[in-house]
Amino acid sequence: MAQRAGVSAQSVSNALNNPERVAPQTRERILAAVEELGYEPNLSARALRNRSSSLIAFKMRPSRPDKASLLMDDFLYVLNASAVEAGYHLILCHAEGGPADEIKAYRDLLTKTSIDAFILAETHHNDDRVAALRSWGVPFASFGRSWDGDDSMAWVDVDGRAGTRAATAHVAAQGHRRIGHIGWLPESELGQERREGWLEACRERDLETDLQAAVVDSLEAGRQATHRMLDAANPATALVCASDTLALGVMRALHERGLRPGADIAITGYDDSPTAALVSPGLTTLRQPIDEVGRQLIQAVDNLMAGDPREPQHVLLEPELVVRGSSLPGPRTAAPTS
Amino acid sequence: MAQRAGVSAQSVSNALNNPERVAPQTRERILAAVEELGYEPNLSARALRNRSSSLIAFKMRPSRPDKASLLMDDFLYVLNASAVEAGYHLILCHAEGGPADEIKAYRDLLTKTSIDAFILAETHHNDDRVAALRSWGVPFASFGRSWDGDDSMAWVDVDGRAGTRAATAHVAAQGHRRIGHIGWLPESELGQERREGWLEACRERDLETDLQAAVVDSLEAGRQATHRMLDAANPATALVCASDTLALGVMRALHERGLRPGADIAITGYDDSPTAALVSPGLTTLRQPIDEVGRQLIQAVDNLMAGDPREPQHVLLEPELVVRGSSLPGPRTAAPTS
Repeated sequence: MAQRAGVSAQSVSNALNNPERVAPQTRERILAAVEELGYEPNLSARALRNRSSSLIAFKMRPSRPDKASLLMDDFLYVLNASAVEAGYHLILCHAEGGPADEIKAYRDLLTKTSIDAFILAETHHNDDRVAALRSWGVPFASFGRSWDGDDSMAWVDVDGRAGTRAATAHVAAQGHRRIGHIGWLPESELGQERREGWLEACRERDLETDLQAAVVDSLEAGRQATHRMLDAANPATALVCASDTLALGVMRALHERGLRPGADIAITGYDDSPTAALVSPGLTTLRQPIDEVGRQLIQAVDNLMAGDPREPQHVLLEPELVVRGSSLPGPRTAAPTS
Repeated sequence: MAQRAGVSAQSVSNALNNPERVAPQTRERILAAVEELGYEPNLSARALRNRSSSLIAFKMRPSRPDKASLLMDDFLYVLNASAVEAGYHLILCHAEGGPADEIKAYRDLLTKTSIDAFILAETHHNDDRVAALRSWGVPFASFGRSWDGDDSMAWVDVDGRAGTRAATAHVAAQGHRRIGHIGWLPESELGQERREGWLEACRERDLETDLQAAVVDSLEAGRQATHRMLDAANPATALVCASDTLALGVMRALHERGLRPGADIAITGYDDSPTAALVSPGLTTLRQPIDEVGRQLIQAVDNLMAGDPREPQHVLLEPELVVRGSSLPGPRTAAPTS
């Protein structure tokens, strides 16, 4: 290109990136050559020289009207902040449907643009996305561990077992002895882990472990499970849930029965979704350290792109129990502020 | 590049995009030339030929723990879906601080990558971002009208006045005669518009219009305003709010006073944030047609990039009233499902 335009490579770069540094006629000649050749020495070009460019891809997932799982949107924000700080930018991937559609969208992105790395979320057993990215030789890291115990994959995750243990210990410390669990279906690895935390905390205290339901993650499923569990003889007085969505379903059921969260039945969720702080009373929940998750993921792909010879990073972080009114006995009504 | 490697331009393209179509030695030779020259015929190169590439930039804004304004995250999802459908991808921009930081982040993006268009959100009077993008000659469209009446800017917006009019008419139809408004501070153009919708609906019905508060958009501000308004003599029996965040503050105040949303005081919000459907009772609110907003914005920048000679698009959409329990009189407790 520089040869064709009869100028230095630096002038080509300036013509495109710092036009004020190049004489107008020179710039015209360079742009004509650029257009003729169809090449642009943009960041991809620099990136190619340096064996790394600047785009990291991440697939957004749709929010659903019956789910409080907006953690992922906050996560996207902090992931992008970490990416920009480290000199990258996030490009969004879109796919409706299942893993095959997601893989196709990844491939489209790779062939159409110069993506340097991918961030995955919500890993599961036999994750085809992992196999695909590996076969293409693209660096990636995952929010969610390898459930297949694959140590060659870089991941950052949050300890769900520790979370539900802490929530169960908290309601036990409030005096509850009949502590139930509303969790996800058995095929969910995350759900299984969160259930085990509740189970362990109950067993350590010699509490019953038969007060449980396994349902899909929706407000309606949480609501129905609560009605079933409270209709039983000798029901639970506290419900530790696998998600804020399920816990909000418990609150809906209590509202329908004229019962008060906290005062009548203690409730805990999981995720510290924005809704948890906005309901009345506030929802006790587990906060995932997503700032740290975002930083560690960008660090992980940065290391991979730099050819860091160390083992891929595996980071398991602890969630933090956030106590609000839904797990505390009262008071039902505060004094008016008049 | 093709000359240097002694091959056709198509072979260069294949070597980079469809390696299986090129003999291994040819590919090696091409890649060496690519590396030597530092040029890559990626999408930016095709884009330069076609006078348009594929990246549209959008700045995410952080969620705040005391705000329900997660509409913007749903919006990001539908905007990306529309972008991908039209052959573009969204790249995320990050800036903390004010408009100056946002403009700096835009400029960084433009100089480092090949951004073809920007989508703005939350426009206001004398918007410096508009002036900056215009001075750079970059196509852009805005979610939010030009409050300066600048018809040369493409925008899509939702009619806030129509929204609060509909909410006020709805609670009036439930029999309420003392309908208050909790809105934003006077400097907010959006807040002013939403206040006017309530005012108009009250005047049409000869209802009092002095039951109002103007506060910042936070749950705590909504909560405190509610306590002040309910402590007054002859208080409102319905509160039409400028946002779901403020309406959730009303619900918090009612919870503290032992009053029931819907049964004791009718409440309406604005945005149909995910939280609105998850609280108990559900929050009556205005749903913005963000799918349509996303489609129209991508269409607008697509037209601009294609050099469409018609006027830039100005699209004002109507919000939809979503009625839930917070504005209905009861029943307080449904029959248990047993």
